[in-house]
Amino acid sequence: MREQLSIIKIGGNLIEDAQQLSEVLQLFSKKEGHKILVHGGGKKATEIGNRLGIEAKMTNGRRITDAASLEVAIMVYGGLVNKSIVAKLQSLGTNALGMSGADGNAIQAHKRPVKDVDFGFVGDVDSIQSGNLSKLLDAGFTPIFCALTHDAKGQLFNTNADTIAAELAVGLANLYETSLFYCFEKKGVLEDMTNEDSVIEHINTQKYQALLQAGSIADGMLPKMHNCFYALQNQVQKVHIGNTSMLNQNPSTHTTLTL
Amino acid sequence: MREQLSIIKIGGNLIEDAQQLSEVLQLFSKKEGHKILVHGGGKKATEIGNRLGIEAKMTNGRRITDAASLEVAIMVYGGLVNKSIVAKLQSLGTNALGMSGADGNAIQAHKRPVKDVDFGFVGDVDSIQSGNLSKLLDAGFTPIFCALTHDAKGQLFNTNADTIAAELAVGLANLYETSLFYCFEKKGVLEDMTNEDSVIEHINTQKYQALLQAGSIADGMLPKMHNCFYALQNQVQKVHIGNTSMLNQNPSTHTTLTL
Repeated sequence: MREQLSIIKIGGNLIEDAQQLSEVLQLFSKKEGHKILVHGGGKKATEIGNRLGIEAKMTNGRRITDAASLEVAIMVYGGLVNKSIVAKLQSLGTNALGMSGADGNAIQAHKRPVKDVDFGFVGDVDSIQSGNLSKLLDAGFTPIFCALTHDAKGQLFNTNADTIAAELAVGLANLYETSLFYCFEKKGVLEDMTNEDSVIEHINTQKYQALLQAGSIADGMLPKMHNCFYALQNQVQKVHIGNTSMLNQNPSTHTTLTL
Repeated sequence: MREQLSIIKIGGNLIEDAQQLSEVLQLFSKKEGHKILVHGGGKKATEIGNRLGIEAKMTNGRRITDAASLEVAIMVYGGLVNKSIVAKLQSLGTNALGMSGADGNAIQAHKRPVKDVDFGFVGDVDSIQSGNLSKLLDAGFTPIFCALTHDAKGQLFNTNADTIAAELAVGLANLYETSLFYCFEKKGVLEDMTNEDSVIEHINTQKYQALLQAGSIADGMLPKMHNCFYALQNQVQKVHIGNTSMLNQNPSTHTTLTL
């Protein structure tokens, strides 16, 4: 029997609220087995960027990461948010180790190719250094990832945190019995967007296709679901979507995804 | 025979100059044996602080770290400077892992007690978690430390980078044959402050006392020398002070300190 690994991604809204962040970190610290946390940056990067006089650059309605925005991302995601979470988790008895994709060469990426839009310093993931990560996990460390990758030539990139969580899960699924958890503000994937309690408790490939065809999966959920099935199609055992109380020992109602 | 460990601290001036930083990281990456890099933050923190409208607070002529300044330190030292160095070292083939004192619970500290001055969020080091650090070193990682510590209760602190380097050396000297290198812009400790070539090649306790009595050790050098002898008095084998070329395989003229 292989060892269990939980990869838990917490979104921006959770991070901005000190009370909610504290709760999710307590639940995370109590979770048994090997675990990895992946965090977004929330609005703090935008706030710091604004205060530094760096305007969010848009091209064709898409946000791009220029050199100045990348610096802010490195400061806020890699510095302020990451180290604050690490310090908090250490106080809860979790031996947290903050990482970007450059640390331990954990996540290599390349600049997103320019098609309609040049996204700037945005990285698409090439590979996970599972050997280095398993050394850290087996030595009792709990990696805490911010949403930064690198190209192994000295360049850091901004990369979507949901994607990083999925890629880590896929990259480690050959070594551990890996589950992926996407924590956000809703209870799960909703059948009816206007009804917060209409959580779909189980989604398999067939249901996923039906939901796609019915147009029931809205903007933000589309890439998240894509990441979920990418992970499931690449040896990840289970994916969970829900709010933080799904991390309880007796998990609350949420969405579980399988092939 | 115990394994060799080199702890190398690079100062602020080196970090600000891209060319000099690149050179020192190349020399660092070529250095054989286990190694740890400790970096200061340079003027970048002041620059970012100014742009954010955060004024440097002084009390009785001493700089203090209030909550806003600590946030800047965490962003700049723990984020921007640390991750940029890590990415650069990875491109040079060194398996760098960026850390604050909170990561892996590496460096515990307490808030500096208030006497004449309340320094704010400045930490005095209590202990080094040598067990966690030796796991990382033995697994082939190269820790890159910024000048931040924590109290294991969730609070991060600003701590002098020279002090962190000395404390890491002392904390690991029982496990490794430890040498400490302070890299700065001068060739070493100078006999005559007005002559850059008057490097004192060897300082032992007797010479140190003589220099102190003669008043030859100036402001910035006083705490540095104090850190050196603190390390030497606590099992660290050798301490070196000089510019980056002392890291060459054939080291340039510099100051070596022994008991």
